[in-house]
Amino acid sequence: MKNILEALKLIREYLDTRNMEKLKELVNDLDSFDMADIIDVMDPEKQVIVFRMLNKNKALEVFHNLEVNAQQQLLKAFTDDRTTELFQSLEPDDRVQLMEELPAVVVKKLVSLLDEEDRKITMDLMGYPSESAGRIMTPKYVRVSKNMTILQATEKVREAGKEREREAITDIYVTDDTRKIEGAITLKDLIMEEPKRLVKEVMNADIRWVSTDTDQEDVARMLQDRDQFSIPVTDKEERLVGIITIDDAMDILEEETTEDIYNKAGLIDIASTETDRSQRLVSGSMVDVFKVRLPFLIVTLIGGLIAGALIEGFEEALEAIVAIAFFVPVVMDMGGNVGTQSSTIFSRALVLGQIDMSDFFKHWLREVKIGLSMGIIMGVVAAFLGGLWQGWDLGLVVGTALAATMTIATALGFLIPYILYKSGFDQAAGSDPFITTIKDISGLLIYFFLASTFLL
Amino acid sequence: MKNILEALKLIREYLDTRNMEKLKELVNDLDSFDMADIIDVMDPEKQVIVFRMLNKNKALEVFHNLEVNAQQQLLKAFTDDRTTELFQSLEPDDRVQLMEELPAVVVKKLVSLLDEEDRKITMDLMGYPSESAGRIMTPKYVRVSKNMTILQATEKVREAGKEREREAITDIYVTDDTRKIEGAITLKDLIMEEPKRLVKEVMNADIRWVSTDTDQEDVARMLQDRDQFSIPVTDKEERLVGIITIDDAMDILEEETTEDIYNKAGLIDIASTETDRSQRLVSGSMVDVFKVRLPFLIVTLIGGLIAGALIEGFEEALEAIVAIAFFVPVVMDMGGNVGTQSSTIFSRALVLGQIDMSDFFKHWLREVKIGLSMGIIMGVVAAFLGGLWQGWDLGLVVGTALAATMTIATALGFLIPYILYKSGFDQAAGSDPFITTIKDISGLLIYFFLASTFLL
Repeated sequence: MKNILEALKLIREYLDTRNMEKLKELVNDLDSFDMADIIDVMDPEKQVIVFRMLNKNKALEVFHNLEVNAQQQLLKAFTDDRTTELFQSLEPDDRVQLMEELPAVVVKKLVSLLDEEDRKITMDLMGYPSESAGRIMTPKYVRVSKNMTILQATEKVREAGKEREREAITDIYVTDDTRKIEGAITLKDLIMEEPKRLVKEVMNADIRWVSTDTDQEDVARMLQDRDQFSIPVTDKEERLVGIITIDDAMDILEEETTEDIYNKAGLIDIASTETDRSQRLVSGSMVDVFKVRLPFLIVTLIGGLIAGALIEGFEEALEAIVAIAFFVPVVMDMGGNVGTQSSTIFSRALVLGQIDMSDFFKHWLREVKIGLSMGIIMGVVAAFLGGLWQGWDLGLVVGTALAATMTIATALGFLIPYILYKSGFDQAAGSDPFITTIKDISGLLIYFFLASTFLL
Repeated sequence: MKNILEALKLIREYLDTRNMEKLKELVNDLDSFDMADIIDVMDPEKQVIVFRMLNKNKALEVFHNLEVNAQQQLLKAFTDDRTTELFQSLEPDDRVQLMEELPAVVVKKLVSLLDEEDRKITMDLMGYPSESAGRIMTPKYVRVSKNMTILQATEKVREAGKEREREAITDIYVTDDTRKIEGAITLKDLIMEEPKRLVKEVMNADIRWVSTDTDQEDVARMLQDRDQFSIPVTDKEERLVGIITIDDAMDILEEETTEDIYNKAGLIDIASTETDRSQRLVSGSMVDVFKVRLPFLIVTLIGGLIAGALIEGFEEALEAIVAIAFFVPVVMDMGGNVGTQSSTIFSRALVLGQIDMSDFFKHWLREVKIGLSMGIIMGVVAAFLGGLWQGWDLGLVVGTALAATMTIATALGFLIPYILYKSGFDQAAGSDPFITTIKDISGLLIYFFLASTFLL
């Protein structure tokens, strides 16, 4: 990693001092993956200058390895000829991913520049729902039939291999004449087995496939669970139409997890795709950033004001004993943090498959028991500290309120994401704002109710 | 996914009705990946019963695909013979992962049961620091020399392939006599190229490697960035000692991200490894859970009480105008949520390489500008709503306090993780508790200061 950083500094320096010759030498010397990483973090204007310094083949390689956002920036900056060349250099599935982020007019123009075969493949992929297996599969798979010999199959792979430079071939699928999947063999099988043996004797017939409308996250998890390098995709008639490889699965899992993390922090933006949002938060325009960040803050504002109105309802108690107000922060913070712990544990367990959902009630009872136990522990501590500070009556009220609030917060922390999940919503998106508001209000309600009942 | 759930329900039913024959039939019928997924979510006692129903080969396969925790449970429950067999059936890297979670006494006993070669490999791997490349690599790679022909290389791979059943071979590394890496060829090359060509004419000499002490997350990110199926690992003398494959990289990224998510939610537990903690939170004992969850809650309790003490400092203002207390929740919530947004954006950008860290100051200024702008927007709204409700003087104070708090919270949201990162701490662990406490206190301080200055 250190070398990349040094290279980045040097590139900066050469750019600042307009030392274009040295710059050209350096960028063509770096390997295309490092170069892509460097361009990804540069400002848009500098990206274009640096990219222009690359000689042709290097430029195509680097372009292929860039993030979608950087690709977009570069496409915008170039003339039509260069743009077409770069666009054509991408594999179908990567091209479709890039197109999702471009304005419709640009997409139309670019697609018209592709040759007939590429255009057909691209349009086919675009026809599947976004985030589905159909959208991310590559149609450039290799298939053989079960009555071929290993030698014949090897020949077929050789044929196919000539056309595929970048997408690695690992698994080869065995289908019948109607493209129905019957099994799979690997490159290793081709090398290890006797050339005369038949594919059907060697193939693994016990394979799983997904359909074009399977959710991309489910596909990625399947690949991860099974330690396979690829998984086949079939259409509604169960005919092989493409494959998804493990390197794509890895990117999908990262993307989905990032999406969950953003949603948890109230960075909710339903309109945009994930890659787009992620980059916009770091380098987009102010208005773009506001669109993502403000919605949750508005919900928070309203929630906070409602909590305030609730306190107003106990104005009398407050006027009599102003010290009641001193414990508002601790009641709010404890309920909030323990609730976040619960919802985080639940969401992760769901994603990682640690919870058997048909047994939800058992897990829920356990969590509530934990909440109650921790509530009692923290309540005793708070009652003691609060009692020393503001007298035992108030201390006792604070301790009891804390225990009750923490129990309720853990219960909600499991229950709300579960209900969202059961109703088909993404359990991570938007459950935290709900929990925040509900636990704030219930916590303060309990606290002020106890205070006004026992202290007045 | 649906079929797995149905299978799980059936297994439950057969267990409850003691229908062991049907159970045996069903579990041996399911594929070994699905079976492993099912056992992973079952209760420990039931795991053992179901596992015993599997016939021998199936049992080994299923065991290999289980999560480390389930493997541990089963090992405990079996007699020595069965335990040895299961333990031996694992690949060296998986075996080491399992050993990390077992008590030292058990490890010692199990290792003594391995044959000499396996014992040596296992002990070598255990000698590397945890979470390092050395720990997760597999020493079962294939290497060839550059003066071999493709045919000779193919022969060597065939030889090696006979011993390796489970770990897939994709890349073959080219080394000199001292095992220094000179390049790599793929299985595809072996199939595509003329048998008489020399390895050195075909190999890719432009490859990167990592050393045994490279952090596992860095390795995983490199594999992800490069769309490679494996990466070689070298010792200090730059000699090849193992390889790491993409399926392991995928699990590592998931693990590291999960760790970040847990730490953000205050589920901090430095003593245990990630896999361990994750499972314990869902099914561990109460005391185990408390160890993970209570530390952050104690910090929160102290922070909340300090915030309360701060309010006490403005007791006079509160006694004069009790309505000041009504806006405490909104000031706390807004600062908290916007601060969480900032720290989430920063941490994610760091992980995903979207921020060029040598340019931190620029990114920070941008974030503060965003915080100020959003603070002004939300401040105006809050001033208006608060003014309508409790009079314009108080409304104006609330609005101003909100704008100031939100600006400070965004500034801290970037700055604290940055400082932790620069000082070599994991930026995600423990930055949220800090931010929560600091923004609570600074927000309330600003609010009460403005209130007591302008309203009394």
